[in-house]
Amino acid sequence: MQKEEEKKIAASIATNLEEVKKAKVIGIGTGSTTSYFIDYLPEDILKGKVFVTSSFDSTLRLKQKGAKVLSIDSIESIDIYIDGVDAIDDNGTAIKGGGAALFREKLLASMSKYFVAIADTSKLKKELNNSFIPIEVKPEAVNYVIKKLKDIGVIGNVRYSKEGKWGPVISDSYGVIVDIQIKNWKISLEELNNTLKSITGVVETGLFIGMIDALIIGGEPPIVKQFYRKGKN
Amino acid sequence: MQKEEEKKIAASIATNLEEVKKAKVIGIGTGSTTSYFIDYLPEDILKGKVFVTSSFDSTLRLKQKGAKVLSIDSIESIDIYIDGVDAIDDNGTAIKGGGAALFREKLLASMSKYFVAIADTSKLKKELNNSFIPIEVKPEAVNYVIKKLKDIGVIGNVRYSKEGKWGPVISDSYGVIVDIQIKNWKISLEELNNTLKSITGVVETGLFIGMIDALIIGGEPPIVKQFYRKGKN
Repeated sequence: MQKEEEKKIAASIATNLEEVKKAKVIGIGTGSTTSYFIDYLPEDILKGKVFVTSSFDSTLRLKQKGAKVLSIDSIESIDIYIDGVDAIDDNGTAIKGGGAALFREKLLASMSKYFVAIADTSKLKKELNNSFIPIEVKPEAVNYVIKKLKDIGVIGNVRYSKEGKWGPVISDSYGVIVDIQIKNWKISLEELNNTLKSITGVVETGLFIGMIDALIIGGEPPIVKQFYRKGKN
Repeated sequence: MQKEEEKKIAASIATNLEEVKKAKVIGIGTGSTTSYFIDYLPEDILKGKVFVTSSFDSTLRLKQKGAKVLSIDSIESIDIYIDGVDAIDDNGTAIKGGGAALFREKLLASMSKYFVAIADTSKLKKELNNSFIPIEVKPEAVNYVIKKLKDIGVIGNVRYSKEGKWGPVISDSYGVIVDIQIKNWKISLEELNNTLKSITGVVETGLFIGMIDALIIGGEPPIVKQFYRKGKN
């Protein structure tokens, strides 16, 4: 099946979740799969719920459909959060941030009571050990952070816009995105996450560990998985 | 002796440090004591070195005296960093951020090879356990962070401008300052720091643990102390 078809199936299944119907506040992530989710939302959900989003793009899409989008700083928690992933393993550990809405996606995931990831089959990985992990960095700290990464044997590269913008990619929260590669990394992803977070200037990492409650993969047949989540809001 | 006199003495001693004379890149913090340091810098240092600062205010003061102020994101390390503290104990653990230049001060301290704190005697505390600790928070995460703090028994209050600005204090790095109180806190300051840093939206804390190399207190007689520093840059 084609990738886009799989994304559509995953998005469509998510719109029919009981948790979506019951939710008062729905969090919406960023990216192609999430856009399908917005497209497939039935009228009564679009008009009957309130939304918060991780990006300007998703806010605009929802506004165009007449949905009510709240400011993130006006709420304390989100009933359900729907977002895509860049890579996810069997335990529900995921890497996100490919679309550079990194900090806001992590914030909404942290604020959510229930986080459903939606994806095509290509996102499901045996292991995440050879992936790029994006981190969001305060602009003034970029050089320092890259130097600190080098000190611990990690190569970090500032992500540049290929088109549409001159220079480095700036996130929806005004951070610079640095992509790091973790080939043959010897410590756990959890330790890596803590190490990265401890560096002054790293606002957030693209590692989502113990944060996802359920995963919907739009294969044939579709896969729905539940995970153990550590830090429920 | 008066507080201002003590600040002047500490600042004056710092301008004569060998490390200042040898430095190529000098980092300058923010606040009244640091301002005296800038005022007392001899002409050959002002004109012969390059500076980075933690705030717009210090940059302006240096520029007015004809000094060369570099952009933080253009350098990787700082030879010596001079800054005040709000409170410091016998081990050199300090609380900073009272002047709301929090993130940049932490960044410069992290980037520095040698960090000299300058202060009056009122800043020297037997223990820091009853102090307010400022943290710098991403604006969109303020409500969430305050809720998370409450969950772990910590009261956090957004700092408001008393005059000069309507509404919350915004730092030099566009963060909101939240002041937290740690009365009768049972875990170590290091654990508290890690817990605070792990909350999505907390950019930095005002806890400076194992970061200060030397302290100059402008009492009569002045006190100069050396500390063991953990994470030398």
